[in-house]
Amino acid sequence: MARQHTGLQLDDVVERSPQKWVYLFNEGHAGMYDLLGVKGAGIAEMTNAGLPVPPGFTITTRACTAYYEESQQFPQGLWKQVLAALKTVEEQTGKHFGKKNNPLLVSVRSGAQFIMPGVMDTVLNLGMNDETVQGLVRLNGDERFVYDTYCRFIQMFSEVILNVEAGEFVRLLKQYKERAGARTEAEIPVADLKQLAEAFKQIAERRTRKPFPNDAYQQLQEAIEAVFSSWNNTGAINYRNFHKIAHTAGTAVTVQSMVFGNISSDSGTGVAYTRNPNTGKKELYGRYLPYAQGEEVMARTRNPLSLQSLEKNMPQVFQELQEIAQRLEQRYRDMQSLEFTVEKGRLYMLQTHSAYRTALVAVNVAIDMVEEGLISEEEAVLRIDPSQIEQLLLPRFDEAEKERARQEGRLLAKGVDASPGSASGKAVFDANRAEQLEKAGVDVVLVRPEATSDDVHGMIAARGILTVHGGATDQTAVIARGLGLPGVVGCHMIHVNEAEKFFQVVGSTRVVLEGDDISIDGLTGEVFAGTIEAVHPDFDREPGLQKLLSWADRFRKLGVRASIDHPRNLGRAVAFGAQGIGVCRTEHMFLEQERLPIVQRMILAENKQERQEALDRLLPFQRSDFKAIFEAMMNPETGEGYPVVIRLLDLPLHEFLPSYHELLVAVTRMETKGEHTPELAQKRKMLEAVAAVREANPMLGTRGCRLGLLFPEINIMQTRAILEAATELAKQGKKLQPQILIPLVTHVSELQEVRRQLEAVAKEITAEVGSTVEYKFGCMIELPRAALTADQIATVADFFSFGSNDLTQTTFGFSRDDAEDSFLLQYVKGLRVPGMRNRIQILPANPFHTLDIDGVGRLIQLAAEKGRRANPHLELGVSGLLTNDPESIKFFHDIGMDYVSCPPFSIPIARLAAAQAALSSAKKEQVLPGKGI
Amino acid sequence: MARQHTGLQLDDVVERSPQKWVYLFNEGHAGMYDLLGVKGAGIAEMTNAGLPVPPGFTITTRACTAYYEESQQFPQGLWKQVLAALKTVEEQTGKHFGKKNNPLLVSVRSGAQFIMPGVMDTVLNLGMNDETVQGLVRLNGDERFVYDTYCRFIQMFSEVILNVEAGEFVRLLKQYKERAGARTEAEIPVADLKQLAEAFKQIAERRTRKPFPNDAYQQLQEAIEAVFSSWNNTGAINYRNFHKIAHTAGTAVTVQSMVFGNISSDSGTGVAYTRNPNTGKKELYGRYLPYAQGEEVMARTRNPLSLQSLEKNMPQVFQELQEIAQRLEQRYRDMQSLEFTVEKGRLYMLQTHSAYRTALVAVNVAIDMVEEGLISEEEAVLRIDPSQIEQLLLPRFDEAEKERARQEGRLLAKGVDASPGSASGKAVFDANRAEQLEKAGVDVVLVRPEATSDDVHGMIAARGILTVHGGATDQTAVIARGLGLPGVVGCHMIHVNEAEKFFQVVGSTRVVLEGDDISIDGLTGEVFAGTIEAVHPDFDREPGLQKLLSWADRFRKLGVRASIDHPRNLGRAVAFGAQGIGVCRTEHMFLEQERLPIVQRMILAENKQERQEALDRLLPFQRSDFKAIFEAMMNPETGEGYPVVIRLLDLPLHEFLPSYHELLVAVTRMETKGEHTPELAQKRKMLEAVAAVREANPMLGTRGCRLGLLFPEINIMQTRAILEAATELAKQGKKLQPQILIPLVTHVSELQEVRRQLEAVAKEITAEVGSTVEYKFGCMIELPRAALTADQIATVADFFSFGSNDLTQTTFGFSRDDAEDSFLLQYVKGLRVPGMRNRIQILPANPFHTLDIDGVGRLIQLAAEKGRRANPHLELGVSGLLTNDPESIKFFHDIGMDYVSCPPFSIPIARLAAAQAALSSAKKEQVLPGKGI
Repeated sequence: MARQHTGLQLDDVVERSPQKWVYLFNEGHAGMYDLLGVKGAGIAEMTNAGLPVPPGFTITTRACTAYYEESQQFPQGLWKQVLAALKTVEEQTGKHFGKKNNPLLVSVRSGAQFIMPGVMDTVLNLGMNDETVQGLVRLNGDERFVYDTYCRFIQMFSEVILNVEAGEFVRLLKQYKERAGARTEAEIPVADLKQLAEAFKQIAERRTRKPFPNDAYQQLQEAIEAVFSSWNNTGAINYRNFHKIAHTAGTAVTVQSMVFGNISSDSGTGVAYTRNPNTGKKELYGRYLPYAQGEEVMARTRNPLSLQSLEKNMPQVFQELQEIAQRLEQRYRDMQSLEFTVEKGRLYMLQTHSAYRTALVAVNVAIDMVEEGLISEEEAVLRIDPSQIEQLLLPRFDEAEKERARQEGRLLAKGVDASPGSASGKAVFDANRAEQLEKAGVDVVLVRPEATSDDVHGMIAARGILTVHGGATDQTAVIARGLGLPGVVGCHMIHVNEAEKFFQVVGSTRVVLEGDDISIDGLTGEVFAGTIEAVHPDFDREPGLQKLLSWADRFRKLGVRASIDHPRNLGRAVAFGAQGIGVCRTEHMFLEQERLPIVQRMILAENKQERQEALDRLLPFQRSDFKAIFEAMMNPETGEGYPVVIRLLDLPLHEFLPSYHELLVAVTRMETKGEHTPELAQKRKMLEAVAAVREANPMLGTRGCRLGLLFPEINIMQTRAILEAATELAKQGKKLQPQILIPLVTHVSELQEVRRQLEAVAKEITAEVGSTVEYKFGCMIELPRAALTADQIATVADFFSFGSNDLTQTTFGFSRDDAEDSFLLQYVKGLRVPGMRNRIQILPANPFHTLDIDGVGRLIQLAAEKGRRANPHLELGVSGLLTNDPESIKFFHDIGMDYVSCPPFSIPIARLAAAQAALSSAKKEQVLPGKGI
Repeated sequence: MARQHTGLQLDDVVERSPQKWVYLFNEGHAGMYDLLGVKGAGIAEMTNAGLPVPPGFTITTRACTAYYEESQQFPQGLWKQVLAALKTVEEQTGKHFGKKNNPLLVSVRSGAQFIMPGVMDTVLNLGMNDETVQGLVRLNGDERFVYDTYCRFIQMFSEVILNVEAGEFVRLLKQYKERAGARTEAEIPVADLKQLAEAFKQIAERRTRKPFPNDAYQQLQEAIEAVFSSWNNTGAINYRNFHKIAHTAGTAVTVQSMVFGNISSDSGTGVAYTRNPNTGKKELYGRYLPYAQGEEVMARTRNPLSLQSLEKNMPQVFQELQEIAQRLEQRYRDMQSLEFTVEKGRLYMLQTHSAYRTALVAVNVAIDMVEEGLISEEEAVLRIDPSQIEQLLLPRFDEAEKERARQEGRLLAKGVDASPGSASGKAVFDANRAEQLEKAGVDVVLVRPEATSDDVHGMIAARGILTVHGGATDQTAVIARGLGLPGVVGCHMIHVNEAEKFFQVVGSTRVVLEGDDISIDGLTGEVFAGTIEAVHPDFDREPGLQKLLSWADRFRKLGVRASIDHPRNLGRAVAFGAQGIGVCRTEHMFLEQERLPIVQRMILAENKQERQEALDRLLPFQRSDFKAIFEAMMNPETGEGYPVVIRLLDLPLHEFLPSYHELLVAVTRMETKGEHTPELAQKRKMLEAVAAVREANPMLGTRGCRLGLLFPEINIMQTRAILEAATELAKQGKKLQPQILIPLVTHVSELQEVRRQLEAVAKEITAEVGSTVEYKFGCMIELPRAALTADQIATVADFFSFGSNDLTQTTFGFSRDDAEDSFLLQYVKGLRVPGMRNRIQILPANPFHTLDIDGVGRLIQLAAEKGRRANPHLELGVSGLLTNDPESIKFFHDIGMDYVSCPPFSIPIARLAAAQAALSSAKKEQVLPGKGI
């Protein structure tokens, strides 16, 4: 089946192939990771640095891509190149693949451009068969070692390549051990091991209904194919989706001659880090397992030793390793993670790549390296993944504790990860109860079927929020993120019984009653029973992060402002580095408990006078809200106020009113009972009023500036509150920069008329108090028509604020309220299609989370360009869920946006991402002319 | 107050002014109507043609615009130019303005670029005062005539210029007549007339609290200002809004020396048409009123005579008029409407302009003129207003009968004019009853709070539909237009009581019970009690229209296809000239009574098998639907099938299910009563199912291709039905052009996956039946993202079908279901703003009715260009409410769309509008290079 050796050199073969599919280790270098994978590139780099690396070769990622393009066939020339490379390896090692005489064994590993832990396949000791085993025995003299290795190989090949389940191998091994009275495998007699190898092969043959491949070339060919296939296993696909890695990137395959850590007591295998991965301290750190091979050091079946044991037992090996580690760190200018094997006292390097590290370590290592002169400040800033920063800002469950909770079966359900951070507390099912308990000092998690306006005060009181319905961009999620309140929404796996105050896990008998402890993880969407220990970070005590961000601030061009709903979040926003308020949403201020009845009176007013009376009562609340915001948002350096953008009311009226369904049920119930109470009359009146403002598609209804045009009194009251607050502070000598923002504009005439209204109010106030505060006037660009006619709108606006959530909603035609509950997550996860192995992915990412550059992005760019052309002084900002996504921030930087506005907790992320955007754009600009791309 | 004569000539004065504001009649011509108004340009043309026109001058429309730009002040130089022109008129007539000696009287009339009947002001006999009256008496010797005229002048000036109400003048005149025992005003003694003139002045002075202007120049100045002001009275604004005339166009003012039709028995005033306006026959036709002035011939207070009386009594005047009429028709190459006055046997021409005519007359006159060689076929096609054509296709109430119904107080309410045509019938309040009565041969009008899926069979049975809720683009309206069913929706002035089967007019005690006759006018939105006689046109018996349309077909480039919902409308579509089906919407087929239960079973299916069973039952229905459509859509000339575009299912699932609220009420009621019946259990189950598919914003929810991606079985069934039907007919030798249309695509991957699904089905069918039908595959472009990424999508599509309703919805962010009920109509009508006289208009037109060129239009253009660039063979069509709007059609022609698709009744409109678009674009192309614009 497998084709035999051709006898040609690799170069000759490549010349006759359409492409070079195979690189010997000495043909590559570290920069070739896109072609050779991180692993292949690392080995090539080490080979060329003269480090002790067992010889081998790497099959390129392009070969993998070609394999998929050609309906899962090896591309033309690949196998011939593999055979030629193998010949060179035979020459380099003096060993012979598949031959009895001094046989060559190899490992086959996958290695993509990105480290994809746990998802790809590795096979060791390939090339063993009944013949070569005899050759090995002859060579080593150690029959036990050889047959032990043979058994391991058969099991590994069966599991990884042939997809045979592990269970039977494990059971059989156990039987053999018991039969021999052996405590460890090392004590099993050689004769038994020989039998075991045969029995293992029989298991594989029974399961696969094929003979176990005895031919070394066939083993190699199947192993390569298995690696290619593993690129598209479900775990790998999910991992790539999560990390936004292209599915077409493909994986490389590295074939390397084996060295044996399990051959003698002065052999072993280990991993090492050039710095301590828990603290970032500069010291060689790692684990070593004597008498072991490959992954055993990671597998935790035996306890590995610290590297100190290696230092003690084989000091020269340790010293060599230490020198190599330092050389590699210098060479890569980054903290490395190394794999090595010691064979009979001799060190072999198997892998090196940049080490995975926690956010805290990443920051500390970067700063140390700058101080050591190893990297520049720019590089330090570029090295930190902005999304990791969130870990340093929000409470998070201790990973080990969470793992323990999972193992104890306490994981109840999973929903949408709507607002990051984690929380434990007593489950409560209504907002008032949450408020009561909070006052009594009890930590609570508010659990609701869906959160409405009535629940906001409960959310403010709670440590976390959990809902059955909703998505990551709906009001609940927006409010939660604004509050820094951990939140899981859209958790359909639980059913809430409000009346009886409990929730049940769907399809099980598990029930959580009011007062039971639960824990929610807003980063993963997980819901646990009981409490989980959490880590509470403190931004002020992270000097490393502060230093890194101060560097970032020097590099970035994009401003970073805070999006807020309540004055209460302001301290945090300033501490995190907000340079002003990008959007202060006023609708949530209207939802506060003592105000809501007045707001309802305003909406239900039967005439203008009633409405005006309600508004007059709201005015002082709003004035003090705005005053508090202006006072908090002072630039400590200049003593002047930061810009503060206040958005006038934008919410469908019905959101301020009681639920239509609940009223309908209540009225029907009372009517059926034949009641004739004043309560019924009142409820009926409310029902009529709610019915009158109900809309079939409220997101496209009487919202935003439409409301302010139909009822100018609301706008007028808010403008008055803003300008009166600002004037009052201005009289105290404070210099302020208020900006008034009009939501949901679709046509320039809307903005013209609102501006006319507001200018009249400003004039009135100037007349009343004799002085005036300068303010800017602008509008949201959150509807496609506004973007398309931005040139017209820019003539009336001083600034644009792009609303990415709404703009995504209408550009895609995806309801923010519904899409994530239904088809959208399916689109991202991929659709199951009968007869197809892999899911079919419709969207590369959730466009509410990551900017859709081709659609929404181009629309924003178009609007920015048109707007700036019509009004060169136009200020451009953007808000919404995308503003803590580094990729989206990069785009906003590139198109010349002035600032992004994000929830307080995301501000450090945005600062860092903005700096990276500026640095990478600058680099590209430098590179472009030189390379002539 | 008024400034006196300067003594300068007009040319001198103009030289010192910033602009020429005034044109003497001999300085203008017919082409200057934008500057001089239709009236001023007509008079100038007649003057230059040497016709007997009393001398005068015209103040330009620009002067009016300038007047508004300068806060309602005369622009610089205007008054001086008026005075200079007046001097010339004095010279031409030998009379003196405001002088006792041979005084000059003038008329002052408005005249915009467009004929705006009834909305602007006219004053005759200006220049009369106590002094000039004496001069006139001396000149004429007829004291009675002079004082009669003086009284008329004071009354007219007071009413029109000073805004004094007519009542007091009328009452006083009546008193004087009674006192003198006079039957007509002509019998009032002269002495009484003199007193009356004084008394009239006193009325004016009492009402205005100012002296009546005795100075002729002051009269003139006030009259000119009054004309300028009348440009912005509410009536004029409404008229312009309705006819989409720019509010900045302004009106001209024509000042003309008076001639007197009321001076003697051989004097009089008349109107004439160069052809009979009722039939189009070529004959001088009109009315003449002897002894009368100005508007009296129109006012109907006295019965005018036919022109035959003029022919008999003053044959030479008649002959002169006839000659003039012919000359003017030749000169204008169009049917003219003329105003003339005879003063002591001498004919004077006062006005000429193209005559208003009904659609039928317009068509016949145009065709006659082509046959007479007066105009070309192109001109004939350009002359007909496409929107008028509708009158010739749909039943409409006899205007006089409708007017009578109004006068009898039978007008009950007004709603949104959702589907044209008119209908009378018995009011019924549920669809089943409508079906019963229709089967019994009774004409019914279906009245519903809102029409849902359950009502479709009732609509099919009814003559008309009336609903309380909804707008012109919602499902009800779309279905009604498709059926050619007259419809009024969104009629909030009535309250429907379904249970008791009646409706009440809100705020009155008027009630319509089931079985009472009502009449609805879908062109105006009016609802009447009782029946109204209607005219039922017959397209086949309108040879004129057919000829005109056949010419139109020769000129147009844009194809015209039909949008349909049911096979039953096809005959009409073909008769009206459809060249295929542009969109066959399949969702309404699913709503038919015998299918709906199966569809519901499909939606509620708990597993794939149940779903498949339901789909298997739907397949034969759909196959026969499609077969009927293919069979009907054969091109009679070629014998081959026209292209037939079938759109796969696009409707939110919940629209197929019972109402959530009705179920909620029913279940609550049963639960409150403590019932435990199987019915309750069943209803509960249905309630849960409906709740599960409910969405907050269904328009942005699980619709269109999203449905087909989540449940491919539906698409597969429909594709199978289409291809099986086509294959069956193809085997009979018919050549067909099926096109499969995928709705609501937003990302190219959606289309790719659906295409993959469907190609698999096509392969299956080919395998089953051994033959294959060629089909095209395309998608709706009805979401902004699809338009923005049209280049990507075009690589997967053979054609695009732009959905203007949905694209407008998402581009504007206006819900089709709600907007017209709430803010949108306010936006178009204009917002009332405190302290402002005029409403503030936010949108120039309803964008669902007339394409918003700046926003939606540009997006469509962008998509068309991107699409064509990526796929040069891409076919482009558009459907939606805009496709019978000529302006929108012009745009679609200009951007190179291949076809529009509209409801059958709109096809002739679209054919004509498309021809006009082609002709006017061709003209522009010819003109452009020559004029170098």
